[in-house]
Amino acid sequence: MQEINDGNMNFAFVVTNKQGSNQSVFVKQAPPYIKVMGEQWPLTRQRMTAEINALNYQSSVCPEMLPEVYYQSEALSVVIMQNLSQHAILRTELIQARYLPRLAEDLSTFLAETLFYSSSFALSSLNKKAMISKSNNQDMCKITEDFVFTYPFEHHEMNDYNPALSQTVIDSIQKNPNVRAHVAQMKYMFMNKPEALLHGDLHTGSVMVNGLETFVIDPEFSFVGPMGFDIGALIANLYINYFSHAHKRSVEAANYCQWLLQTIDDLWYKFEAKFLSLWAEHELSIQSPFMGKDLTGGTHQTFRQAFLQQVLSDSLGFAACKMIRRILGVAKVADFMQFKKDQKLRAKLETQTLNMAIEILVNRHAYTSIADVNKLAEDLVAV
Amino acid sequence: MQEINDGNMNFAFVVTNKQGSNQSVFVKQAPPYIKVMGEQWPLTRQRMTAEINALNYQSSVCPEMLPEVYYQSEALSVVIMQNLSQHAILRTELIQARYLPRLAEDLSTFLAETLFYSSSFALSSLNKKAMISKSNNQDMCKITEDFVFTYPFEHHEMNDYNPALSQTVIDSIQKNPNVRAHVAQMKYMFMNKPEALLHGDLHTGSVMVNGLETFVIDPEFSFVGPMGFDIGALIANLYINYFSHAHKRSVEAANYCQWLLQTIDDLWYKFEAKFLSLWAEHELSIQSPFMGKDLTGGTHQTFRQAFLQQVLSDSLGFAACKMIRRILGVAKVADFMQFKKDQKLRAKLETQTLNMAIEILVNRHAYTSIADVNKLAEDLVAV
Repeated sequence: MQEINDGNMNFAFVVTNKQGSNQSVFVKQAPPYIKVMGEQWPLTRQRMTAEINALNYQSSVCPEMLPEVYYQSEALSVVIMQNLSQHAILRTELIQARYLPRLAEDLSTFLAETLFYSSSFALSSLNKKAMISKSNNQDMCKITEDFVFTYPFEHHEMNDYNPALSQTVIDSIQKNPNVRAHVAQMKYMFMNKPEALLHGDLHTGSVMVNGLETFVIDPEFSFVGPMGFDIGALIANLYINYFSHAHKRSVEAANYCQWLLQTIDDLWYKFEAKFLSLWAEHELSIQSPFMGKDLTGGTHQTFRQAFLQQVLSDSLGFAACKMIRRILGVAKVADFMQFKKDQKLRAKLETQTLNMAIEILVNRHAYTSIADVNKLAEDLVAV
Repeated sequence: MQEINDGNMNFAFVVTNKQGSNQSVFVKQAPPYIKVMGEQWPLTRQRMTAEINALNYQSSVCPEMLPEVYYQSEALSVVIMQNLSQHAILRTELIQARYLPRLAEDLSTFLAETLFYSSSFALSSLNKKAMISKSNNQDMCKITEDFVFTYPFEHHEMNDYNPALSQTVIDSIQKNPNVRAHVAQMKYMFMNKPEALLHGDLHTGSVMVNGLETFVIDPEFSFVGPMGFDIGALIANLYINYFSHAHKRSVEAANYCQWLLQTIDDLWYKFEAKFLSLWAEHELSIQSPFMGKDLTGGTHQTFRQAFLQQVLSDSLGFAACKMIRRILGVAKVADFMQFKKDQKLRAKLETQTLNMAIEILVNRHAYTSIADVNKLAEDLVAV
């Protein structure tokens, strides 16, 4: 048995069969406190109930991208599952500039299937409300409310700034009433838009990959919230990775950056196509479509396009908050921290990211495609 | 004991003390079916639990506008309360062109207090989620989803059209994909925006008035939903009443119409001022304001204004759906039905109302004040 020290919240172990060295399982258990902080930082074990609930749901709609669960116990706050020994954390792979040809295809499937099948389009209102009750994860939601949407935007003692980051840039967010109002709108939406059962923390550290497979792990922040929160988390972390490569003046880096931007574009485009396809297929199979009968043709299509445009705007707003909190908040990302011995370089990349975040937050309703967002990212690097 | 036959859903009685003729109480009981339809139309008694829950909440924040409750039993689905014998239904008073000088003041207080104190700004997330669970009223929400947001917009057998209403006008809603998409967005918002504990059916038949007092009654559709749904219901029914008077060519009618428009303007303006005042007062009393610390001055104000603008847009969208459903759906209003012997006149008023509804639905984000909405109503009458 080997303890895994990656996570902050929970205990994790790989248990190997001494008789057959290829046989191993992954064991995760939530103590009634935050693991890395110790018993003086209590946190309820509700998070493991939420994780088990999410693993069960996600496996039911998208089994090929979930680790197989062998045993689960809400009472013990423990889950024993497939050990993904042949896979690496996506963030690490992206930092090492590995090409992952299946990434957009797989993650768009995960998003489309998990978000559609838990939405008001697929579930009866009765089942939807039951899912909301069952998926209550209040303590973890509060952590997100504070650490993603509040502390990074005020002078909070837990914030951690790169000393080379200019105060003017920090102030352009924290002291900009318009930016602050948009962030507060996203926080309010996080708390008041229970659209679908989310992963809840879908950054590139919650995905494991190899050339053939993609797995989504660690849904301990899962709750019923706005679809754009999961999509935005992924997009935010992919753009962060983009800025961590785009400053390099090599052909290899330029090619990798093109692949990253193409992947973000594909991720959204494929998500949209798959979500629309699930929706159309579902409504063909039921008698009463969500918006009532279409009397002219084109009615359902018009609503569905408007709906996906709203999901895109929400995703950009949430992506912006996620990008900002990784720079001004306490939780950092390795994509930028790898440069911590060159704080000026790190500050340059952080500034590009923050400027992008402000733009896609404040003008999120004006963007109708990822192509325009990609153009913005490229322009910010070219300055 | 006298049975009251006003309501469709529940049994209602006035019980008078034979010894003291001025002493009476009002008794309301929900059977496990829709009263007017009989036992072959089952409906759970959840609606009385929701009504009791709403009466308790509304009384706690706004006691002067709620009938006093003497006895309540969820098990018996019964409530015994103050008999409002000195008050009349607001809709009836408006049809009779009675001036009600306290109306905007009182209803704006009811809206500001009930909506603010059940919002994410006033409640902890834990208490908010508890309120959502406790206020589940799924069966009644389903009735609204169907009868307000779906049936009136398709060729549904339950719809009931004025035979004098032009098919072109009906088609301009039912066969307009853009209008239909906006209605679907409002339906989706109704189901996916649990902002505050609503009355849930706040039309002018759910308000009782005399010159001195205003009471809000019958919250059997209460649930946690979008703030704009309650505000929109009131506004919709006030504009419906406006169109029922505005065609008359008398000075008295013109004066009454001016009072109605002023009342709608006051209702919104006073609601906004009171909501903002409750919010500011509440955040002065707590350590951590919703959006974090204001570092420059003006930050909280910017968000609060943007938030209220969103509530106004939502209110207009919901008002539009409510106006349309009273004309194309099954449930009619006396404001127009009083003219049923002159179907052409009725159709003219219905057409004005439908044209207004389309405009404030589709362009709801463009309206920044009720003054512009009032101007639209006046222009539609002048055509």
